[in-house]
Amino acid sequence: MIYIGVDLGGTSIKVGLVDAEGRILAEGATPTGMPRPYHGMIEDMAELSLDLLRAEGLTLEEVASIGVGVPGIAVQETGMVPFCTNLDWHDVPLRAELQKYIAKPVFIDNDANVAAMAEAMVGVSASVENSVMLTLGTGLGSGIILHNRPYSGSHHVGGELGHIIIETDGVLCTCGNRGCWERYATATALIREGKQAITEHPGTLMLQYAGGNPEILTAKMVVDAAKESDPAALKVFRAYVRALCTGIVMVINFIDPQMIVLGGGVSLAGEFLLDAVREELAPMIFVKSMPYASIELAQLGNEAGIIGAALLGAV
Amino acid sequence: MIYIGVDLGGTSIKVGLVDAEGRILAEGATPTGMPRPYHGMIEDMAELSLDLLRAEGLTLEEVASIGVGVPGIAVQETGMVPFCTNLDWHDVPLRAELQKYIAKPVFIDNDANVAAMAEAMVGVSASVENSVMLTLGTGLGSGIILHNRPYSGSHHVGGELGHIIIETDGVLCTCGNRGCWERYATATALIREGKQAITEHPGTLMLQYAGGNPEILTAKMVVDAAKESDPAALKVFRAYVRALCTGIVMVINFIDPQMIVLGGGVSLAGEFLLDAVREELAPMIFVKSMPYASIELAQLGNEAGIIGAALLGAV
Repeated sequence: MIYIGVDLGGTSIKVGLVDAEGRILAEGATPTGMPRPYHGMIEDMAELSLDLLRAEGLTLEEVASIGVGVPGIAVQETGMVPFCTNLDWHDVPLRAELQKYIAKPVFIDNDANVAAMAEAMVGVSASVENSVMLTLGTGLGSGIILHNRPYSGSHHVGGELGHIIIETDGVLCTCGNRGCWERYATATALIREGKQAITEHPGTLMLQYAGGNPEILTAKMVVDAAKESDPAALKVFRAYVRALCTGIVMVINFIDPQMIVLGGGVSLAGEFLLDAVREELAPMIFVKSMPYASIELAQLGNEAGIIGAALLGAV
Repeated sequence: MIYIGVDLGGTSIKVGLVDAEGRILAEGATPTGMPRPYHGMIEDMAELSLDLLRAEGLTLEEVASIGVGVPGIAVQETGMVPFCTNLDWHDVPLRAELQKYIAKPVFIDNDANVAAMAEAMVGVSASVENSVMLTLGTGLGSGIILHNRPYSGSHHVGGELGHIIIETDGVLCTCGNRGCWERYATATALIREGKQAITEHPGTLMLQYAGGNPEILTAKMVVDAAKESDPAALKVFRAYVRALCTGIVMVINFIDPQMIVLGGGVSLAGEFLLDAVREELAPMIFVKSMPYASIELAQLGNEAGIIGAALLGAV
C-alpha cells in the first residue's frame, strides 16, 4: 500500500507518496500562498496528491491513508485544527475538508510530532521506544515519542518545549513570557548573538563570511567561523551550546527519554555540534551514576515531514 | 485482601495495612536510625509489618503484596535500589532482602511517584488519567502519572522536576547545577527569603511570629504573615508563587497533564496558595485559547506515602 504524506508549512505545501518502509516514491510541492482561506490550501493538497498518483500510474485503490503534519495544534480524534498561527487557521475541519476530495482515512498531527515520528519509525531513533526530537531552526520545534507514539498531552498543548523557560526575566518571547528556550537555542539566536558579536569584534571571521554585511549573517556562518576557532564565533557558539544543554537537561530530568534527536538547520553543524553538546551535558546531569539519553543527529532531514505524516497511517 | 505499604524516609520507617480502596486499617512507625546498613532497616520494615498484622488479628494469607516508597531511585523490574542519597544506599537488593522475611510480591517505586499514585488512585486526581504531583516541602518532589501509571522514564531518572532549571546561573543547587526549581519553590526557599526579608524589614510580622528569633522562622510563619498582608511577607510569598508558576508552566508546556496536584508542607497554605497560583499562572500559559491543567491541593496529606506504596500492588 501507498501512504500519502503532507507537510503543510507557512511557505509551501509538500506532498509525497511513501511506502510502508518510509521510502518516498514521488514528491511534489506547491506554494502555501498565504494569506488565503484554508479551503484553497486543502484543495491544493488533494490535487497535488492526485497528480502525483497519476504521474506514478497509481490509483486511489492503492492508497491506504493520508497524513498531514500541521504547524500548529491538530486533534486526531476530531480531525480539527483548533489553532495554527502561521497559517492563520482557527477551528479548521481539516479531515472533513480533505475527505471531500479524497475519501480515505486522514490522520493529522503537529509537524514537530510528525518529524519525530519519522525519525522514530525509520530514522535514527528507530531502535528506541521513547525519544524526543528537537528541531533547531527559526523556532524550536519538539516532538515527544512515548512507547512509539507521539505524545501531545491531555489537551494537545504538550510538547511545546520551545517554551520551557530557561531564564527567568530573560529575553521576551513571542508567547508573552520571558526567557523561553526558543529564544536561545535556535538558528535565530545564533544569528542574533552573532550580529551582536560582530559589533564588538569587527575582525571576526563571521563578518568576512557575511561579505562585510552583518544583515546577511546566517547560523551556518556563525558555526563555520566557530569551527575555524574564531574567538568571537566560538564564544557565541559555546553560549548557544550551554543554552541548548540547559533545556536538554530539563528534558532528561523530566521524561528521561532513551534518545534526544537534534534536527533542523542548526543540526547541520553535525559532529561539531554533537561533540560540544555531549561534553557540555555530562556534568549537568542530575543523577550522574545512571545512564541517560544518548544525543544523536537526525537522519531524515527535510523529508521527515512528509515521511512522518505518511506513516501516521501506518502504525 | 490487605496491602502493606511502607513509606521509607530518612527519619522514620512508616508502615500501614491498607485495603483495596486505599483506607489505612492500621499503621505504625519506627526510626530509620541513620546511619546504619540497609539490612537492619529492611528487617525493621518486615517486623513492623508482621507486628501490625498480629495486632489486627490478620495473617500473611490475607496479604496480597508489599509496596515500598523509597526516597531515591527504585527499579521495579529488578527490585533494586541503585541510588538513594538520603539513606546512603547504593545497589541495595530491596525486594530480595524484604522477601527473606515476608514471602510476598514486593513492589518498589520512588516516594514522590508513590504519593502521586495515591492521589491518582484514591485522592484528588482520581478522576483523571494524567497528572503531576508536586510535593513542596524541604525539597521539591514530583511524581508523573501517565495513563494511570507512574512514569519514571527510560532509565528511572525521569520525573526529577525539582531539578528543572528556572534560572540560568541562579542559586547553586545540591545537584551541582544552578537555578534549579527546588531552590525557589520549596519551604526551604520561603524560609531563606523570609529570613533575608527580616534583615531588611525588622518590623515584619514574620519576626513577631518567630518570637523575635529569625532562626526558628518556618514557611508557615511566612505564609501566615502574607495572609495578614504584611508587606515584606507578601513580597516573599509573591516571588515564591512566581517561581512555582514558572516551573508549572513548563510542566504544562511539556506534558500537558489534566491536573497538577500541590502537596507537601507549603500546600497547607491552602486556598490562599491555590488562588495566588491560579491567578499568576493564567497569563503565563503558552496556548491561551486551549484548556489546560487544573491546579488542585493534595487530599491525602502525609498518609499518601503509605497508601500509594500499598496500592502499587493493587493496580
